[in-house]
Amino acid sequence: MPNIALLPGDGIGPEVATAAIEVLNAVATDLTYDEHKVGGAGIDEYGVAMTDDTMAACKASDAVLLGAVGGPKWDTNETGAVRAEDALFGLRAGLGLYANLRPIRPLPALYDASPLKRELIENVDMLIVRELTGGLYYGERGTKDGRAYDTLVYTVEEIERIVRAGFRAAKSRVTSVDKANVLDTSRLWRDVATRIHAEEFPTIELEHELVDAAAMKLISAPRHFEVIVTENMFGDILSDEASMLTGSLGMLPTASLGGDGPSMFEPVHGSAPDITGQGIANPIGMILSGALLLRHGLGREAEAAAVESAVDKALDKGIRSRDLGGTATTAEVTKAVLEEL
Amino acid sequence: MPNIALLPGDGIGPEVATAAIEVLNAVATDLTYDEHKVGGAGIDEYGVAMTDDTMAACKASDAVLLGAVGGPKWDTNETGAVRAEDALFGLRAGLGLYANLRPIRPLPALYDASPLKRELIENVDMLIVRELTGGLYYGERGTKDGRAYDTLVYTVEEIERIVRAGFRAAKSRVTSVDKANVLDTSRLWRDVATRIHAEEFPTIELEHELVDAAAMKLISAPRHFEVIVTENMFGDILSDEASMLTGSLGMLPTASLGGDGPSMFEPVHGSAPDITGQGIANPIGMILSGALLLRHGLGREAEAAAVESAVDKALDKGIRSRDLGGTATTAEVTKAVLEEL
Ligand SMILES: CC(C)[C@H](C(=O)O)[C@@H](O)C(=O)O
Ligand SMILES: CC(C)[C@H](C(=O)O)[C@@H](O)C(=O)O
Repeated sequence: MPNIALLPGDGIGPEVATAAIEVLNAVATDLTYDEHKVGGAGIDEYGVAMTDDTMAACKASDAVLLGAVGGPKWDTNETGAVRAEDALFGLRAGLGLYANLRPIRPLPALYDASPLKRELIENVDMLIVRELTGGLYYGERGTKDGRAYDTLVYTVEEIERIVRAGFRAAKSRVTSVDKANVLDTSRLWRDVATRIHAEEFPTIELEHELVDAAAMKLISAPRHFEVIVTENMFGDILSDEASMLTGSLGMLPTASLGGDGPSMFEPVHGSAPDITGQGIANPIGMILSGALLLRHGLGREAEAAAVESAVDKALDKGIRSRDLGGTATTAEVTKAVLEEL
Repeated sequence: MPNIALLPGDGIGPEVATAAIEVLNAVATDLTYDEHKVGGAGIDEYGVAMTDDTMAACKASDAVLLGAVGGPKWDTNETGAVRAEDALFGLRAGLGLYANLRPIRPLPALYDASPLKRELIENVDMLIVRELTGGLYYGERGTKDGRAYDTLVYTVEEIERIVRAGFRAAKSRVTSVDKANVLDTSRLWRDVATRIHAEEFPTIELEHELVDAAAMKLISAPRHFEVIVTENMFGDILSDEASMLTGSLGMLPTASLGGDGPSMFEPVHGSAPDITGQGIANPIGMILSGALLLRHGLGREAEAAAVESAVDKALDKGIRSRDLGGTATTAEVTKAVLEEL
């Protein structure tokens, strides 16, 4: 009986978590869930975003399912140092989740919701593989005497393992994104990617793209990309940019993999304080995160595909939450998905 | 008699420079031009991307007009360490050009060329103010024992002056972009922006936006932005992303300001080795850089506006180079602009 560490978190997190569990229960009756308060909810209950006990429970689980953390209540000061988000950094580092996978696949039923012209997004099907436990996020930093600094650090081993994750996910082409005309870390990144490609994945095409050029091409020629692999901060920016191709952040799931223990699954959207408590959040990003949990966390491909296809069908039949220009509530969208299972 | 340091550079640089000088000559007959080889052309002639003599000549000039530098011939190795680009870094630092201005204004005549839906780009008129002499571009870096690092550094003074440049360029709203939920430099940035706003520009609205959210909003709601001010690397990525709204990089000029001496003007596009020597490059980005030179470099607003309006009219009448889906050559586009002056 696989045990899931369920971390609903803040804002709409608990609302979409309820929806996802309903859908998971419909396809996998043997799963058990242990719920823990993290993020702002953790701060309110225990004074920290993530207790040691919760971290231990996550490590002992078979997979972690996270809603969303953060919100204005826990912004410690005007500088935006949102401590609720420490839960995220702790989980990523604590579980060793160095590979963040973000599939970007605009659904035909939602082409009209995309800011891009239809002919550009037709058949877009890309995967962004973001390095998640290195770079500026975890480097030494400080502020002193009117001067602040952050350090961007990568080792050969850190680059090797994330580049391999990119190649393993690709059928024919990997685009490695860096800023090798400026950064030493990017030059090392490019060297390592080139070597791993030659030694281990010679039949897959490898192309190098500068991050500024990639930011353009994501909009002007998104179909070009199959798998993008890049460092932590570039991946943060490019994956949010690419998410817009689908028309709504509310649709998108993400998987964080790579540790020896459990992996973590969560929607791309945040805690959305503006619509919290109204029952109108789009649960699809969270439901599809449940599908990724079934696939990558538990190795249950058939169940994962069943959930994904139920979501596609429900959208094809016209169900739309507010973020997609419709009026359906969280419960109505969930019901529509359940009906297609 | 204002003297312009003309640095045509590499690839299509010399081709578009010729076009821009023709247009400048039509509105400002008193300008003189001293031409210097920089970038790959400098490496071929002198062994360095930028000689001390050229730097001295630039410093002694009234304004610097640059074409484009770089190209595959001068990539020193597979890691993409393009030495031709040292000319850029040298000029920016040497002339103290800390403020890079990038106007993004999709022209109605070119709405069809944009990847975004027309209703989203109508009336977009934003200015990106990118810090240009700090951050990861100029911090300490190195590679040793399988580990590379780059340092992102900002001082209070560096942030103050660029934030001021942003407010001065704004009528009603400045969006300051950072990653204050992760970086110490961004927390300092946010504090300084907040203070400069309160002390010096209280009548202009200041909003803070995280870089990942900004990368989304640039596509989903570009009309929201008036002036964006941000650090060097974020500015590099976001300004290239935003440039796609206009449909072609070939259209866009940029001004680098802030030093005690001359400022620098150049098109946003690169040296475009693939179309070099064919006479088909779009000269409009370079022609409009000439307009910015007239405005910001020499204080000649009327002449600058005349050039800009001639470009608008030529496009309205239908002239299109290849990047815009047309067939007009560089010379034909230039002639079309000259006819409207
Ligand atoms: C909340 C924030 C710290 C986080 C990040 O930058 O990693 C978020 O943007 C994400 O992409 O998961
Ligand atoms: C060529 C490159 C180093 C440069 C930069 O990153 O500054 C370019 O992208 C730019 O925006 O001017």
